Amino acid sequence: MKAVQYRTIGGSPEVVEIEVPEPGPGEVRLKVTAAGACHSDSFVMGLTEEQYTYGLPLTLGHEGAGIVDKLGDGVTGVAIGDSVAVYGPQGCGRCYQCAQGKENYCERAVELGIAPPGLGAPGAMAEYMIVRSDRHLLPLGDLDPVQNVALTDAGLTPYHAIKMSLPKLVPGTTAVVIGAGGLGHVAIQILRAITPSTVIALDLGEEKLALAREVGAHHAFASDADAAERIREATGGRPVTAVFDFVAIQPTIDLGRSVAGVESDHVIVGVGAGMLPVGMLGAPYDSTVRAPYWGSRAELFEVFDLARAGLVKVETEVFPIDEAPEAYRRLHDGTLRGRAIIVP
Amino acid sequence: MKAVQYRTIGGSPEVVEIEVPEPGPGEVRLKVTAAGACHSDSFVMGLTEEQYTYGLPLTLGHEGAGIVDKLGDGVTGVAIGDSVAVYGPQGCGRCYQCAQGKENYCERAVELGIAPPGLGAPGAMAEYMIVRSDRHLLPLGDLDPVQNVALTDAGLTPYHAIKMSLPKLVPGTTAVVIGAGGLGHVAIQILRAITPSTVIALDLGEEKLALAREVGAHHAFASDADAAERIREATGGRPVTAVFDFVAIQPTIDLGRSVAGVESDHVIVGVGAGMLPVGMLGAPYDSTVRAPYWGSRAELFEVFDLARAGLVKVETEVFPIDEAPEAYRRLHDGTLRGRAIIVP
Amino acid sequence: MKAVQYRTIGGSPEVVEIEVPEPGPGEVRLKVTAAGACHSDSFVMGLTEEQYTYGLPLTLGHEGAGIVDKLGDGVTGVAIGDSVAVYGPQGCGRCYQCAQGKENYCERAVELGIAPPGLGAPGAMAEYMIVRSDRHLLPLGDLDPVQNVALTDAGLTPYHAIKMSLPKLVPGTTAVVIGAGGLGHVAIQILRAITPSTVIALDLGEEKLALAREVGAHHAFASDADAAERIREATGGRPVTAVFDFVAIQPTIDLGRSVAGVESDHVIVGVGAGMLPVGMLGAPYDSTVRAPYWGSRAELFEVFDLARAGLVKVETEVFPIDEAPEAYRRLHDGTLRGRAIIVP
Amino acid sequence: MKAVQYRTIGGSPEVVEIEVPEPGPGEVRLKVTAAGACHSDSFVMGLTEEQYTYGLPLTLGHEGAGIVDKLGDGVTGVAIGDSVAVYGPQGCGRCYQCAQGKENYCERAVELGIAPPGLGAPGAMAEYMIVRSDRHLLPLGDLDPVQNVALTDAGLTPYHAIKMSLPKLVPGTTAVVIGAGGLGHVAIQILRAITPSTVIALDLGEEKLALAREVGAHHAFASDADAAERIREATGGRPVTAVFDFVAIQPTIDLGRSVAGVESDHVIVGVGAGMLPVGMLGAPYDSTVRAPYWGSRAELFEVFDLARAGLVKVETEVFPIDEAPEAYRRLHDGTLRGRAIIVP
Repeated sequence: MKAVQYRTIGGSPEVVEIEVPEPGPGEVRLKVTAAGACHSDSFVMGLTEEQYTYGLPLTLGHEGAGIVDKLGDGVTGVAIGDSVAVYGPQGCGRCYQCAQGKENYCERAVELGIAPPGLGAPGAMAEYMIVRSDRHLLPLGDLDPVQNVALTDAGLTPYHAIKMSLPKLVPGTTAVVIGAGGLGHVAIQILRAITPSTVIALDLGEEKLALAREVGAHHAFASDADAAERIREATGGRPVTAVFDFVAIQPTIDLGRSVAGVESDHVIVGVGAGMLPVGMLGAPYDSTVRAPYWGSRAELFEVFDLARAGLVKVETEVFPIDEAPEAYRRLHDGTLRGRAIIVP
Repeated sequence: MKAVQYRTIGGSPEVVEIEVPEPGPGEVRLKVTAAGACHSDSFVMGLTEEQYTYGLPLTLGHEGAGIVDKLGDGVTGVAIGDSVAVYGPQGCGRCYQCAQGKENYCERAVELGIAPPGLGAPGAMAEYMIVRSDRHLLPLGDLDPVQNVALTDAGLTPYHAIKMSLPKLVPGTTAVVIGAGGLGHVAIQILRAITPSTVIALDLGEEKLALAREVGAHHAFASDADAAERIREATGGRPVTAVFDFVAIQPTIDLGRSVAGVESDHVIVGVGAGMLPVGMLGAPYDSTVRAPYWGSRAELFEVFDLARAGLVKVETEVFPIDEAPEAYRRLHDGTLRGRAIIVP
Repeated sequence: MKAVQYRTIGGSPEVVEIEVPEPGPGEVRLKVTAAGACHSDSFVMGLTEEQYTYGLPLTLGHEGAGIVDKLGDGVTGVAIGDSVAVYGPQGCGRCYQCAQGKENYCERAVELGIAPPGLGAPGAMAEYMIVRSDRHLLPLGDLDPVQNVALTDAGLTPYHAIKMSLPKLVPGTTAVVIGAGGLGHVAIQILRAITPSTVIALDLGEEKLALAREVGAHHAFASDADAAERIREATGGRPVTAVFDFVAIQPTIDLGRSVAGVESDHVIVGVGAGMLPVGMLGAPYDSTVRAPYWGSRAELFEVFDLARAGLVKVETEVFPIDEAPEAYRRLHDGTLRGRAIIVP
Repeated sequence: MKAVQYRTIGGSPEVVEIEVPEPGPGEVRLKVTAAGACHSDSFVMGLTEEQYTYGLPLTLGHEGAGIVDKLGDGVTGVAIGDSVAVYGPQGCGRCYQCAQGKENYCERAVELGIAPPGLGAPGAMAEYMIVRSDRHLLPLGDLDPVQNVALTDAGLTPYHAIKMSLPKLVPGTTAVVIGAGGLGHVAIQILRAITPSTVIALDLGEEKLALAREVGAHHAFASDADAAERIREATGGRPVTAVFDFVAIQPTIDLGRSVAGVESDHVIVGVGAGMLPVGMLGAPYDSTVRAPYWGSRAELFEVFDLARAGLVKVETEVFPIDEAPEAYRRLHDGTLRGRAIIVP
């Protein structure tokens, strides 16, 4: 079968021919219907030999969907022919975190050598893939796999980020989304769907700002030196209650801090980090900073229910599997509108 | 091997000899170390032919612990020799509820024919038992299985009941526990461990009241016509914030309602039901009534951590497996102090 | 000045001429801009001599708005000319409940003889009114008092009812609103604004159902013997997560119970009460029943912020003060569309 | 009357004779029974002329208690002779924050020139004091004012800090308290009273560590280079769930970060600040950092209820008002055990 693999450190992803895999006991084989390409793949392929820990060759694709094709021994929860999506941040299933469905924070995944498909285990950019357990397969039902596969990361990650701040996002509050790309444009829709907050999007380039407005942002401003002032004008001077930063470089982190108020949440979602002053003299009282990672299994159910209700829709560009390398090139160049989806 | 079975409707439990079972793919065989006898077993054995739906013969025991003895194909989460406890209210593992570890509220268990051990599936009152999945096995570590097996129900059920009311149980509040038996005497300890509330226990008989005081109740009163008045005296007239009723007959339900105040929680845990007036003219504003069932997987981890910290301890009487029928007789007669534990 | 008063038990409200009142220390006098007429006024005027406890004559109007007109000694929080709305369920301001702004549940109001305007104290259906403290006055700013005065009860009451159930109203859930009148048609809008839930409205009469759809209900069904079945069809068989019953008679209470599922909230908002089975054998696991009363001060801020964002709008019919008796007649006959607002 | 005043920048507090003040409308005069001396007083008296904004002379004392002595016009909530404690972080009473009793975060206090007693307004270190409103007076009842006055800050501040982290402090978790002084030794008691967590205290000096153990810390370690390692040993390698840092200098902030795990809370309570890496590559996933300030009115009720239940007790040294300057000297030198209380 065809698969998109990262084969040499510093190289480009390649389309190769490999064996169709067989499911072991408890495992499930999917005939893949769609796989998403993500900035974090590019991040991983940009790591040096010293930093890289995912094994080679690596079949890419941590956003995946497929049709159940073959059941390993003992599998009873799914049936051949089911259309399903893959929950990516897989854990042991047994520990305290996994017992809440927060497999993204599994206490034992590292020790047991469990890795997400496409980020250690063979991923979804192939004609077939193996999934560790039927509990990692969520029913898609009538949802189109191509249009919705990206929700497994580009939907779940902002949903988790936003959900933890939900109690604060009461009427009259403002939420700022920095970066209106793959995750950010979904974040805007989620905020509109589950909160009454005013949503302000920041990005560079008029095209991204237009997308932000199109998907529901009340305001969309250039992410430049005047951004903080424009936000203040838009809110009538009321401080911002939540900042969701999908860029996460020091300047956006500083911008977020400068507009957030007392008891605000500053959520850094991008693969980045910076330095911030903390403490009573360094930040508004009871404001928090945190950096979430992906989301829980139950949250992914909720994301798909948002899609079923027509409340979130991922912008996608579809590529046949042979053009996956081109999709990554476009992703890297920033010329995609929304998410690149690979179809085998 | 020996097993304690309910074999004929209306009959008594019997100790019989049956085959040692073999684990299928994904399943785990335990060499049982301890099993608890519970009022709900008696309830089940008291059902008429029309009401009874659990299949015959039924190996009893929904509270179980054991040593991992044999692994079915594909099991990787536990190792032979591990000392574990069984999470009883098992579900499909895949649905929205199970994805939060709330398998007690599995959406598909009935449809898929999944039942708890001892309440449909073969239970823990045997030398060996089969468990459906390693995710239903919680590590006991150094905890003594005989002393702690009852926490899987007699601990988990009150813990879940109490945990949902936790945000209301702030300093200055009062919690009332009706029934200081198998579950109630653990509820008292949990309330003392995780809340600053004043705990008042109600029961009949000075022995039960003495046990209630011994395990931490601030007050223990006879559950008679004067109980409401005594509670009012003890609280200085402040209404009660939470009532946990482990008896759940109409008189205790009425008593609970009569002492609970505005925004209170009235939690009916026993296998019972009654009628209550509801609505603005019938109950204190924003007071709730609810009836929980067992608890979640994560909550069972928390219960065992309470035991590890020395904060809960189940009163037990230990019976060898051959005397299990006698244990049920004592349970029925109300002459047990705490929980009857069967040891194979 | 003119005032609308209830003067004799069993009589009709009358427009009378009374003295303009003077504010004492800490009090504020408003020149009334608008007052709402409410079913609970009719309820009060329907009480027998034995039941009636509000004093006579009673100036009606517990929904009020006005312009600050005169300040009692020591008032510094408002300025003459401010446009404000009155928080009705006033309390002592000092007790534990009032310290959270939950003056609707004040521990000392009865003991201190504090009553809401229009329900014991002189109300808003007059040219001028006295308010106990500036903390009971919320800034209206640019919000039109006539269009928004009813939010102080018809908005606040459903908002409080819904807000307590918010954590359960995740994507994929269904909320049922019984009664699409004065409070119900606002409840529908609030649910749409702050949750992603599917909203189903029930009422009698096609006009009310049309209003329900117009303000955002996804479905609106006749509240008859087939309602439960229609709800089940609309949800694809998934049980309902929250029922908000603004009618609150035994048949609607029974209907609510019949559609609500495990862990659901059944909220009885109307001035009514009924009997329900409770307990493990009588209700879905962990489902709650409760009856809230009005709402907190902070919640009223949030309601006005919903109005500012254009997310809730009360249907109103405006009556000059001389026609207030006619407004109550229309209210009683059920021929109003939305809320009757009295303008002095 | 005698008063302890800060009169010149850089000077020491002085005991002076001033006029007994008169209460205006809505205000209340107390005959002071006790006042606490706090590190933040020293902090304020250490500010330079440019930094200092509190006005001169400043009567000290933001922790105060007294007997109601005279009522301003319109005051009805308290009666002469009541024993009360003063809620210090006073706000306008009307804004959205104050409407929740979170006057510590009042939106308008600065604009309206409202300051806490002892931190702008005349404080409690005098024979009499004026309080702005009866809502700032909490009933002490039988609680001894001298023993409990410090709870208004040294109790309320840690209580608020801990309460926001309460949902995370489930059985099996660990909370670390850095600094076992005036606030820290109360924090330890609060954690023991309202959580089942293991409590580890860090401080310098065996005396402080002994106090920490005495008031309930499970472990007390020197706050040195080995502290992180000792914590890891004590928890068996499980990461810490909450750190409460009452010292808040860069080394303790770094220490806190080094032991806190995924989803942890790092709470910086001291008057300090530092720099920390934030973001996915810089901090454990979903861990938060925040710096609270004082607490809400409702929380102060809860603190006094802890005291009533015997669950918190402030270590105090009592000084007559003439020795207040000496108390501040001892505070500065770090030779006090617990809190210095000034008695007029």
